[in-house]
Amino acid sequence: MWKLFFATGTVALATHIALEEAGAAYEAVRLDFGNGAQRSAEYLAVNPKGRVPALVTETGTLTETPALLLFVAQSFPGAELAPLNDPFALARAQEFNSYLCSTVHVNHAHRMRGTRWADEPQAIEAMKRKVTANVTDCFELIQNSMFKGPWVMGERYTICDPYLFTLGTWLEGDGVDTKRLPAIMEHRARMLARPAVQKAVATQGTQIG
Amino acid sequence: MWKLFFATGTVALATHIALEEAGAAYEAVRLDFGNGAQRSAEYLAVNPKGRVPALVTETGTLTETPALLLFVAQSFPGAELAPLNDPFALARAQEFNSYLCSTVHVNHAHRMRGTRWADEPQAIEAMKRKVTANVTDCFELIQNSMFKGPWVMGERYTICDPYLFTLGTWLEGDGVDTKRLPAIMEHRARMLARPAVQKAVATQGTQIG
Repeated sequence: MWKLFFATGTVALATHIALEEAGAAYEAVRLDFGNGAQRSAEYLAVNPKGRVPALVTETGTLTETPALLLFVAQSFPGAELAPLNDPFALARAQEFNSYLCSTVHVNHAHRMRGTRWADEPQAIEAMKRKVTANVTDCFELIQNSMFKGPWVMGERYTICDPYLFTLGTWLEGDGVDTKRLPAIMEHRARMLARPAVQKAVATQGTQIG
Repeated sequence: MWKLFFATGTVALATHIALEEAGAAYEAVRLDFGNGAQRSAEYLAVNPKGRVPALVTETGTLTETPALLLFVAQSFPGAELAPLNDPFALARAQEFNSYLCSTVHVNHAHRMRGTRWADEPQAIEAMKRKVTANVTDCFELIQNSMFKGPWVMGERYTICDPYLFTLGTWLEGDGVDTKRLPAIMEHRARMLARPAVQKAVATQGTQIG
């Protein structure tokens, strides 16, 4: 059985939801970031990057959310979580997920993880001051230029939806005025109506809003 | 015919190399970042994110390097640029490329693009001071834990190779001591022996080392 390592409040929620949507057999294993469990020798043997998510499979351990989401979709084609037979449509989905990981998540990370990129406390505070505007810009671009509705890619629910939903759970903490993001907020409500989302959120203890 | 928008010294080189390896029919279109061409109304109509690469196809415009690389591989399956029929192996390749885009490229970007994440000059200088160590850490992790040799994924050349090569062209500029990275430097030399790499590098005017 697969094992998904997660920590509450992290991007691991996206893969967790996808596993539920796919009907995968897996065990969810909680890491306590408060205790630095992600830096323990035991966990570094699982994932040398010391981050979550990590998915332990019978073939090996995989990390990085965009890769995991596509892997879940490909491993459970019957769940139809990605347009696997249409290279352009799949590229559109991967483009969206890549933007989330390389730009949106990174902008958010400058609030809590500034020590990755600077040592001086003043610099870390300076980064925090820009997070609200940067994350707002990203989500407005998503709302105006990428999001098709009712799901990210249009009529069909895909691996883009749990990923957007997960990063959206950080909006209030990032100080973003969610009234500017009605389509994103409707998407959140639509996601929360899905049993797979409810189960992953309950298991992880995710705080929404 | 497809159109690839690029700027010299950017990550667009990776997709350029992949297009050459695939034998795609495409036109390479240079943007002059020095003149802010990526912020012109004309280019923002192509890519509202104002970045490169952007690939204009008959179906629509695609961005984000990991998505573009997979799209090229899927569009030219005969070139065998990715393990398209093995979900786990493909996830391993996507995991690598996702790490490059969300962590390695981002760490590098704090040298030249610090204004994305802070406004104060002191904070931007503080970010620059951490770039050498952060990029060194990433490439050492790649060398020790990810790179199989002679190519990233082992015996077979994949879409991971042009991406690693491209980010590797920034090592010297980032102040990294490349003597600590013998496997990465051998990979660079191996890449530079490929006609597709030579052509893309010559067209873009890429500076190596």
